[in-house]
Amino acid sequence: MSEDTPVKGEVLYEGKAKILYATSDPGLVIQYFKDDATAFNAKKTGTIEAKGIINNAFSTKIFRHLEENGVKTHLVKKLSDREQLVRKVTILPVEVVARNRVAGSLARKMGIKEGTEISHPILEFYYKDDALDDPMINADYVTAFGFGTREEIDIIMAEARKINVLLTAFFRKAGIELVDFKLEFGRINDEIVLADEISPDSCRLWDVKTGEKLDKDRFRFDLGRVEESYREVLDRVTEI
Amino acid sequence: MSEDTPVKGEVLYEGKAKILYATSDPGLVIQYFKDDATAFNAKKTGTIEAKGIINNAFSTKIFRHLEENGVKTHLVKKLSDREQLVRKVTILPVEVVARNRVAGSLARKMGIKEGTEISHPILEFYYKDDALDDPMINADYVTAFGFGTREEIDIIMAEARKINVLLTAFFRKAGIELVDFKLEFGRINDEIVLADEISPDSCRLWDVKTGEKLDKDRFRFDLGRVEESYREVLDRVTEI
Repeated sequence: MSEDTPVKGEVLYEGKAKILYATSDPGLVIQYFKDDATAFNAKKTGTIEAKGIINNAFSTKIFRHLEENGVKTHLVKKLSDREQLVRKVTILPVEVVARNRVAGSLARKMGIKEGTEISHPILEFYYKDDALDDPMINADYVTAFGFGTREEIDIIMAEARKINVLLTAFFRKAGIELVDFKLEFGRINDEIVLADEISPDSCRLWDVKTGEKLDKDRFRFDLGRVEESYREVLDRVTEI
Repeated sequence: MSEDTPVKGEVLYEGKAKILYATSDPGLVIQYFKDDATAFNAKKTGTIEAKGIINNAFSTKIFRHLEENGVKTHLVKKLSDREQLVRKVTILPVEVVARNRVAGSLARKMGIKEGTEISHPILEFYYKDDALDDPMINADYVTAFGFGTREEIDIIMAEARKINVLLTAFFRKAGIELVDFKLEFGRINDEIVLADEISPDSCRLWDVKTGEKLDKDRFRFDLGRVEESYREVLDRVTEI
């Protein structure tokens, strides 16, 4: 971790919720958090005021907690309200979803009521491709199609299960149940590190006492109090 | 395997392509092969003349070959043109698909040309539920939702990979490439055995030299020569 902050350069990539900028250090990029919100593979779009500021603070807190517990991540440091300095990685085209309770697409596809308990966590892989609607895949696809090596997918599965244990305990301290969440991993040479973000955009977070949803489902399903809920989970997590 | 054939009783279950009858022996049932054909989750229906006779002969031959190579199956013996005597099992609600080349739903969902080679076989699980359109699942679902135990799914995965190796070699002798196939497994007490059928209904079988499809895709996509192709693969396999 360098003391000096490299100079911000050109836009490398603009996604639905973030922009990546090159920097004067070829090994580092700046991750900028936008307020733009999308859902259902961008069929629904909108803005959640101050979301970028909240998600940056939230994700920085979570990634630091994971780093302290031995999880390698791309995070170098938070630079400003909306910016993080992160290591430049090649994102694997695989989304990893960990689930602790039935919700969202799992409820719909299995015909099971949202909220149903499961006897142990479920880990899933999806192929990151908006045009194909992010189809579900499995570890065999990853190696058969060359998305990653067997060693890489083994590391990713082990890290995802460890992160789920760590974050379930972490959020419980804030009175929040971690229902499910999405992770992305990146490659730096031979190393696999957690990348992207962990935020109310990428997690289902339910109040332990009331069951109230405190995540992007409020935006997806027009449940109201969207900004307030994002703010609330940040406040609760900041106090831990 | 008893010398006496038990007496045929009432219909226990009628599926899309087969009927199961009780017998005078509570541990045995009769599996009757129909000519009815369905595709695309029964959105397309029809009849393939003599399919029941062909699939019974074909599946009996394949199951015997697998038994000779150490795979436990439900098959006791072929009784008649359209009937097999099989052990009564509880079918697990999981379809296992093994793939050696991109075809069918894999091509569509990944946006990859049918026929594309993959670097190693892919194993997939689907939840057997017509109303839900047989959604893709994985081993975590099987145990989390109680469809089977960890030990059972481990046996199923190992057996499916072994069956793929055996059948790939078996069909190659008949000048046929085993592109992909579907398996179902059943439980008898603590034992897991291969059940259902293996036939041109449940496999993609391509002529090694010409690439011609010799399976249910001829029915699915109205390619013509449906009966002739079923008959041809049976004739080729019978000669092995």
